[in-house]
Amino acid sequence: MSDQPTVYCKQPLQIYLDDTGSGTPAPGGGSVSACVGALGAALVSMVCNLTLGKEKFASVETDVRALVAKADAARAQLERLLQDDTVAYNGVIDAYKLPKETEEQQAARTAAIQAGLIVAANVPMEICRVAAEVCRLARTAAAIGNPAAVTDAGIGAILGEAAAQGAALNVKINLGSIKDDAYVQAAQAELETILAETAALRAAVLQTTLDKI
Amino acid sequence: MSDQPTVYCKQPLQIYLDDTGSGTPAPGGGSVSACVGALGAALVSMVCNLTLGKEKFASVETDVRALVAKADAARAQLERLLQDDTVAYNGVIDAYKLPKETEEQQAARTAAIQAGLIVAANVPMEICRVAAEVCRLARTAAAIGNPAAVTDAGIGAILGEAAAQGAALNVKINLGSIKDDAYVQAAQAELETILAETAALRAAVLQTTLDKI
Repeated sequence: MSDQPTVYCKQPLQIYLDDTGSGTPAPGGGSVSACVGALGAALVSMVCNLTLGKEKFASVETDVRALVAKADAARAQLERLLQDDTVAYNGVIDAYKLPKETEEQQAARTAAIQAGLIVAANVPMEICRVAAEVCRLARTAAAIGNPAAVTDAGIGAILGEAAAQGAALNVKINLGSIKDDAYVQAAQAELETILAETAALRAAVLQTTLDKI
Repeated sequence: MSDQPTVYCKQPLQIYLDDTGSGTPAPGGGSVSACVGALGAALVSMVCNLTLGKEKFASVETDVRALVAKADAARAQLERLLQDDTVAYNGVIDAYKLPKETEEQQAARTAAIQAGLIVAANVPMEICRVAAEVCRLARTAAAIGNPAAVTDAGIGAILGEAAAQGAALNVKINLGSIKDDAYVQAAQAELETILAETAALRAAVLQTTLDKI
């Protein structure tokens, strides 16, 4: 056994699926949500790549070129978060193992657990933020991309919304143990905003897609 | 270049993401929907594997053992469909290349295109059916599984619903070109049933999850 964590993007897709299904803690729902968001971003890039260079879409060439750059960047972020989430909870687990004999040790351990929980909540929160961006990019792809690929833009929005909803559950479960009220309130408010936006975007992009097919 | 199609589950996850994002036709939204459903099924298996063998969940051991078998089977089906969808449209493309000089050739070509479209629609329809099963299995996992993993059951339901919605778009785009009215009407009715069921299951499992965290 190596101490190096498995780099999941470099492993066969089957390993990622099998390790998710196993009883080991990682990858779990947070990493999988990032993976789903990355798949949604990839579909947006696909729509762009099926649009670029075609004479009949020449008028949107500049916009689509900007869109594919944003979709590729969002995917790169989500691929990183897919990996980060597999170790995000390690800090919490390590903190729980700290000594708790003296009052001083107990205070240090509690502080370390709290700091670890915030790190563990920040990773799925970042997944939510980038997943919302995937939904926005999918809306543009559905609006201006090659209509022959509009279902891929629609599925991009569905997956961005699912990634945000999934990661939000992992933020919420951490918030339940975090004592920093200001952090908890700010995080809850941000989640509400993101989930409302992604739900609206999914509905809008689905409608655009159904109108075009 | 080999004529053998890429077997995506055996390739690095990065290749699946990169090939999706590229301008090549496969993998597209149908295959990606199957992949998302497989990830949802894997999360249900994970909840089961974090429940089995633990004394405090001994009373549900038999039910959870049956559940993990069903989740593993659903995942195996979706892994196959993830691959099948990458070649599902090849029959349609081949049919379009058939000669159309004589009336006889034209009739044979039209028949081959129609047959190909039905095969191409059947693959995402099967993805929808198995994705609905993932939602049902996630409901059971959320109800009886280890509550420490309930967010993974919740995310399983979110991904089952997203997979069904995504694959449904790929069924619908094929239905638009299929002339067999009986097939089209039966498929539309089945999609409506599946999408209503998966939407209700997602909402119910999300509520169970939020109640338990």
